[in-house]
Amino acid sequence: MNELATTLLQIIIVVLAGRACGALLKRFRQPVVVGEVVAGIILGPSLFGRLAPDAFAAVFPAHSVSILLSLSQVGLIFFMFLVGLEFAPGLMRERRESIIVISHISIIVPFLLGTGLALYLYPRVSDASVPFRSFALFLGTSMSITAFPVLARILEERHLLRSRMGNSVIACAAVDDVTAWCILAFVVVVARASDPAQLGVRLGLVAVYAIAMIAGVRPLLRKLLPRVKQLSDEAVLAAVLLVVLASSTLTELLGIHALFGAFLVGAILPRDAQLTQTLVAQTRGLTRVIFLPLFFAVTGLRTNVGLLSGPGLWLCCALVLVVAVGGKLGGAMFSAKASGFSWRESAAVGVLMNTRGLMEMVVLNVGLDIGVISRGLFTMIVIMALVTTAATTPLLDRLVHGLRELPAGGEVDVAA
Amino acid sequence: MNELATTLLQIIIVVLAGRACGALLKRFRQPVVVGEVVAGIILGPSLFGRLAPDAFAAVFPAHSVSILLSLSQVGLIFFMFLVGLEFAPGLMRERRESIIVISHISIIVPFLLGTGLALYLYPRVSDASVPFRSFALFLGTSMSITAFPVLARILEERHLLRSRMGNSVIACAAVDDVTAWCILAFVVVVARASDPAQLGVRLGLVAVYAIAMIAGVRPLLRKLLPRVKQLSDEAVLAAVLLVVLASSTLTELLGIHALFGAFLVGAILPRDAQLTQTLVAQTRGLTRVIFLPLFFAVTGLRTNVGLLSGPGLWLCCALVLVVAVGGKLGGAMFSAKASGFSWRESAAVGVLMNTRGLMEMVVLNVGLDIGVISRGLFTMIVIMALVTTAATTPLLDRLVHGLRELPAGGEVDVAA
Repeated sequence: MNELATTLLQIIIVVLAGRACGALLKRFRQPVVVGEVVAGIILGPSLFGRLAPDAFAAVFPAHSVSILLSLSQVGLIFFMFLVGLEFAPGLMRERRESIIVISHISIIVPFLLGTGLALYLYPRVSDASVPFRSFALFLGTSMSITAFPVLARILEERHLLRSRMGNSVIACAAVDDVTAWCILAFVVVVARASDPAQLGVRLGLVAVYAIAMIAGVRPLLRKLLPRVKQLSDEAVLAAVLLVVLASSTLTELLGIHALFGAFLVGAILPRDAQLTQTLVAQTRGLTRVIFLPLFFAVTGLRTNVGLLSGPGLWLCCALVLVVAVGGKLGGAMFSAKASGFSWRESAAVGVLMNTRGLMEMVVLNVGLDIGVISRGLFTMIVIMALVTTAATTPLLDRLVHGLRELPAGGEVDVAA
Repeated sequence: MNELATTLLQIIIVVLAGRACGALLKRFRQPVVVGEVVAGIILGPSLFGRLAPDAFAAVFPAHSVSILLSLSQVGLIFFMFLVGLEFAPGLMRERRESIIVISHISIIVPFLLGTGLALYLYPRVSDASVPFRSFALFLGTSMSITAFPVLARILEERHLLRSRMGNSVIACAAVDDVTAWCILAFVVVVARASDPAQLGVRLGLVAVYAIAMIAGVRPLLRKLLPRVKQLSDEAVLAAVLLVVLASSTLTELLGIHALFGAFLVGAILPRDAQLTQTLVAQTRGLTRVIFLPLFFAVTGLRTNVGLLSGPGLWLCCALVLVVAVGGKLGGAMFSAKASGFSWRESAAVGVLMNTRGLMEMVVLNVGLDIGVISRGLFTMIVIMALVTTAATTPLLDRLVHGLRELPAGGEVDVAA
């Protein structure tokens, strides 16, 4: 079988498996992303590779995976751009104080707990080639992720987006997202820089880039908007994608990751309904149907549950899960209670912020790309992300269900 | 510079160059495709590689081209599916006889002249590893291509689609397209089969595939249409693209080329305005803006005008051009005159059918992939395709201009 036929067959299998698992798990009220991640893991060395090693080697020969990886990387850039487009800074206007409290606590607590956990995990799942500093920073970051896009979809499906709780959570998730990206960018620069001088230069360049994009490119794009809107749909797409690609290339060259550049362009693009609609309509289909499943498949190919051999490593995995849930769910819940929500609402806030979704997969793949985490730890965090995401809707539905039975009052907002 | 940054930079350069050349040549009333092909050639070894070999090696390092090729191949599958969607068998209902005469003559004449030319070219631009039979068949095929999509766009821009001449030409081009694909599929099977028995089996399998698609899958799809239309846009896209990918993989495994499978699915899909609109809206943007320029860039990287060293090879190139124009333009023009068109209309028919556009590039890349043509001949036919496509609109405008000055009558149809 030649290379093109192999690639096409891989795409078919990946897309089919993703849709089948997505549809199956949707019956159990799971968001589609959980099914797609499960499909990726099933197709990887954890299951398919273990049960049928010959067939696995025929379908995913080692050399062909680089093509799949390139396709998924280019696709992920489109996807991160779409995530950026969904980012709505306007959400933060109301209830500003409680949002700032909840979002910061729900980042700081899991981050600190994660770096603490690094003390236990470093000698067990890392090797001497990775400095402890990078390892601990990365583990902390990976604990503090909240999946803004998955969360937005869950709230939308449950008609909770306009409730007091939903509105606050989505704003907190947006703040968390951006904060986590900034921390991750910082961690990547730290991990990649070879000496303090280079680190300083790198961080300076990243800061210059970010300021130039927000203070220079953003107003420029707003000024150009009336002209851009006169172009054909295709020309608009070409112009915007060129900016996205240029920004991605720049961030990749700066030593952070291409996806930051793509996300930032999406986030700073002028909020214009017609423009957004034009861009989303032309990119979401192929990105969602072909490229995102490829990304999950690549993640699945890198995940190997077989690496967690022995009770010691499964204990590590359990600790990752406990720390992640304790830090994020706990941090978000208690800070929500402290800012005036009811206990039930606060629990819902905690459960929702605990959703890692595919953002965690993105972060993890960055960690593996830059070499700060091992395949074993990668697998543990994939399991953690899957468990926290899968737990979200069942827990939320219980809380909402309970709330629906309450008499009218402040708390009923949640189910509004 | 790492691999991802290289790929992203290549995409940026390719897309920018394509759009710049396209916009520039549009001022000279050229279809966009001419500019995009020129951009591809400029970026290849013909110009960029010759003028700045170091920069060329930095931007397009040999190992990175395989990623570009994979991206362009996957994109070309989407594109060929879109070309298939544009294919309208209904066009052939009117003026059936003249369409059959013109389309067949305009394929047979250049095909025969092309195989004749092979006698002269074979000792000069081929080597003994390629059998003469395959070489001659391929050269004949490459002479008989008409670019249906480019032609449709030119006629649309000139408001000629509903004239008597325009209507006939577009139907002839559609017939030519399908016939040329069939011949090409046959040629590829012949060139790839190692012995007569294998050839027979291969041709049999291809016939079974084609019959199964037209007699089995096509009515099945029509039956499923009402159900498919109830799905979300994303699910419709996923379902159709899975069929496209499966058909492409099958044709690739059958020894013809993945693009045949993609084209055929587009062509047999039920003609439903809403379905077509859903599919086109979700795939055309990225395909046109990112993937098609990548295909032209890959074509340009394979084209090397420097290979045509010495007057002997330029004479070969000139002969290719003369035979291609003489066979196609001449064959179409005289058969149009014979089926009752005026001389001026017949000349317009000839000029239009002579457009090779990007279909010729697709055919050429197949020829290079299966090894029946050399890089030198590849370059000659690229030049021929470029010249015939670039000549179309200036010649057509002269003819239409002349016709517009005539008093009302049969011929004025052309400018209607």
